[in-house]
Amino acid sequence: MSALSVTTPELEFIFNPRSIAIAGVSAKEGTAFGGGGFVSSLQDIGFRGPIYLIHPTAPAIRGLKCYPTLRDIPDSVDYVISSVNARNVPQLLEDCISKGVRVLHLFTAGFTETGDAERAKMEQAVVARARQAGIRLIGPNCMGLYVPESRLAMMQGQIAESGPVGMVSQSGMNAGEFVRYATPRGIRCSKVISFGNGADLKAADFFEYLTDDPSTEIIVAYLEGIQDGPRLAQAIRRAGRTKPLAILKSGRTEAGSRAANSHTASLAGSLQIFDALCKQAGAIRVESLEELVDLAVAFRFVKKLNGPRVVVVGGGGGASVLAADDLNAAGLELPPLLPETQEALAKVTHEAGTSIRNPIDTTSLWEDEGFEATLMPPATAPNVDALLYHTSFGGGGPSARFTDVRGRMARQAETLGRIQQECGKPVVVAIRPATTAEAFDQSATFQELCWRQGLATFPSIVRAGQALANLVEWQRRQG
Amino acid sequence: MSALSVTTPELEFIFNPRSIAIAGVSAKEGTAFGGGGFVSSLQDIGFRGPIYLIHPTAPAIRGLKCYPTLRDIPDSVDYVISSVNARNVPQLLEDCISKGVRVLHLFTAGFTETGDAERAKMEQAVVARARQAGIRLIGPNCMGLYVPESRLAMMQGQIAESGPVGMVSQSGMNAGEFVRYATPRGIRCSKVISFGNGADLKAADFFEYLTDDPSTEIIVAYLEGIQDGPRLAQAIRRAGRTKPLAILKSGRTEAGSRAANSHTASLAGSLQIFDALCKQAGAIRVESLEELVDLAVAFRFVKKLNGPRVVVVGGGGGASVLAADDLNAAGLELPPLLPETQEALAKVTHEAGTSIRNPIDTTSLWEDEGFEATLMPPATAPNVDALLYHTSFGGGGPSARFTDVRGRMARQAETLGRIQQECGKPVVVAIRPATTAEAFDQSATFQELCWRQGLATFPSIVRAGQALANLVEWQRRQG
Repeated sequence: MSALSVTTPELEFIFNPRSIAIAGVSAKEGTAFGGGGFVSSLQDIGFRGPIYLIHPTAPAIRGLKCYPTLRDIPDSVDYVISSVNARNVPQLLEDCISKGVRVLHLFTAGFTETGDAERAKMEQAVVARARQAGIRLIGPNCMGLYVPESRLAMMQGQIAESGPVGMVSQSGMNAGEFVRYATPRGIRCSKVISFGNGADLKAADFFEYLTDDPSTEIIVAYLEGIQDGPRLAQAIRRAGRTKPLAILKSGRTEAGSRAANSHTASLAGSLQIFDALCKQAGAIRVESLEELVDLAVAFRFVKKLNGPRVVVVGGGGGASVLAADDLNAAGLELPPLLPETQEALAKVTHEAGTSIRNPIDTTSLWEDEGFEATLMPPATAPNVDALLYHTSFGGGGPSARFTDVRGRMARQAETLGRIQQECGKPVVVAIRPATTAEAFDQSATFQELCWRQGLATFPSIVRAGQALANLVEWQRRQG
Repeated sequence: MSALSVTTPELEFIFNPRSIAIAGVSAKEGTAFGGGGFVSSLQDIGFRGPIYLIHPTAPAIRGLKCYPTLRDIPDSVDYVISSVNARNVPQLLEDCISKGVRVLHLFTAGFTETGDAERAKMEQAVVARARQAGIRLIGPNCMGLYVPESRLAMMQGQIAESGPVGMVSQSGMNAGEFVRYATPRGIRCSKVISFGNGADLKAADFFEYLTDDPSTEIIVAYLEGIQDGPRLAQAIRRAGRTKPLAILKSGRTEAGSRAANSHTASLAGSLQIFDALCKQAGAIRVESLEELVDLAVAFRFVKKLNGPRVVVVGGGGGASVLAADDLNAAGLELPPLLPETQEALAKVTHEAGTSIRNPIDTTSLWEDEGFEATLMPPATAPNVDALLYHTSFGGGGPSARFTDVRGRMARQAETLGRIQQECGKPVVVAIRPATTAEAFDQSATFQELCWRQGLATFPSIVRAGQALANLVEWQRRQG
């Protein structure tokens, strides 16, 4: 990262509002739609400044005083969230101009994405007027920002803890889903941006910002369309050369392109050209939101693989065989264990029903004493670049009768973390999905114990393998 | 199904033991390994006959009287589970012969799969002696049987309710995982067989049995190796021509083949030849355990698709766009809605932030009144073969503030079930994974409400799409 990191990026002011006004909050308590959701999200995460509500008649909503118009608010307002009808946006914008507002986030939809020419014209007029007045627009048709450090949230349940992952997303839902799935796996975010139609501020602006943002170390993105192609390409190239970058690009099929156009008025563009751009940029294009989360986890916790040689360790012969297939198919290698590794393992494993080749599947893993003794020899072997440990909770296997499950999990996570540290090789953990509430709780607990030890966690062996393979490819593209 | 269904299949006696003896149960309470697991599993599911334990010295274990040897048991024994050391199996077999036992299930491992020539010879000797005496062997190195109707279980937590799905599995773990993942989605089993090394009874025997078994309507399989190729091919062809058949074949990579050999002494064989066999048989080869469960769900609940044209309905623009990509990439079509369908939808949907193309993403889905009114027009449209509804629980979206979640879920499931009935077209439900315990409970509840309405449920849109595409391909292969 260059000297850019120490200068303040141009768009910094967008992410740090001191006060927020929300227009279009329903007076009906508990109404699920509109601005009320943002009130809940901001109160939930603990926004530190005042939240002003704009309502033509109600005196207060959700305990917050309402003002008939933005202009009636006695104090200054940095940031306005619009949930009013699209037809009322021009008037709200005029009020923003009078009030000296700097950012207008248009949750409001019903513009270009409707396919209606008049509504597209209305969007263009709003952008032109805002630009003239020096107001920046986020949206329309988007969920806006999740910035833990500024206590901004786009959805309820988003946590206040910050971290190194920044996201640019054309879809609020996919931004929310990324955060929802990534958070329990230890991913913490710097800035997550949902920008919808991108009428004013576009993907390129946000890539540029995150590239220069010192609090963002890893960038992920969800894109539907290509706006201002050359500038976006330039921004992606610079982002990918500066920070680890993973992009989920939708519209890769005819049906997907049509849906993207209907959603955010996007023109999906050619996937071949986009792939070529990612290669140039040293970025990785992924095919699903799950793969995006998994690669973010790999960037954050695995960081670096010396090569594609993985040793797989876990109970269950059938799972081991499928793991070998899945990892090999993903492009990883499962080297046979060296004689000295096998000898070391033979000392700790029971004779029958176990395999001390690769994958390693031995009953010694079930015993406290055997756990570290089984993992250390393969982890330290010179022909191994990473160790994948897999497990699950709530199966009917031997673990069903263990007592002190929590203590056992803590000891295992601690051991796995220590092995990663001592061997200087990634240790990744695959926890297969639970099918009961009790097992869900145990899985979630073990997952957190693991990532707090600095371990990458995945919900299946095949997803762990894909993430590691993506990381190997990313390193290759970094040249 | 032919006249075969009314004659009793030859192996029927294996699945209906009146009494069981278990050799090799540790006297230590709570020991996780060995025969004790089978005691728990059989007690759990409520095995109706006597369970005799064999132990050289202990008078009783887990409340069950122990006998020094099998021969000391005063009553007759139909079925013996061996968890003794491989070296002690020949003596146990002699005792089985004296005692008139009909089936010996060898959980015991440590035979051919070790790669040791002497142990392979020992396995062959055991098989020869058993055949001579008319005793059938299951295994060695396997978990044996799960037969709800006979109250036989191989793992704890397996339920006593029967159903139409039979499974042949070389791996006990993968059999257990199949049952564990399929059960909460409404799959009930007739017979699940884990046969390990298949020294005596082999995959072909069990395919033949399930083909003729009147309580089995759908067959799934997990195979590592090809034993007795021509006979297995013949059995698979007959199974696939008689009943819906899905096979997960491991050893599709070099690393997987090596692991399969280490696990069950299997020779994986050529995947090309196996694929050709599946095509001939009208069967579908899948690539993961998840895909196997999903196709079983499609066979059981979707049953038949008139074509590949799917309409996708659910909240969330970003998810809709990715859904369109995923389904299209899986080989399904997302037809644009007809003008009359769009007109009908326009009457019930809010103006902005919604899409009434395909995928359909409208806020009317969030309202009780709007739910059926939004689903019925696309479901009844003549250019649609199936409807996919997607949802999730625990997101920060509008649903977060709904009260009476359970009542709302029940009404939705009832409506979805009724639409499937009235339209005569499959309605499938994708429930994206939960990330909190509360949301896990809600997802599990909605999933059960749905399958009890006869609906196929999937844990993601992409997995639903793959299952539907596999079903379309299966129908094509049926000619």
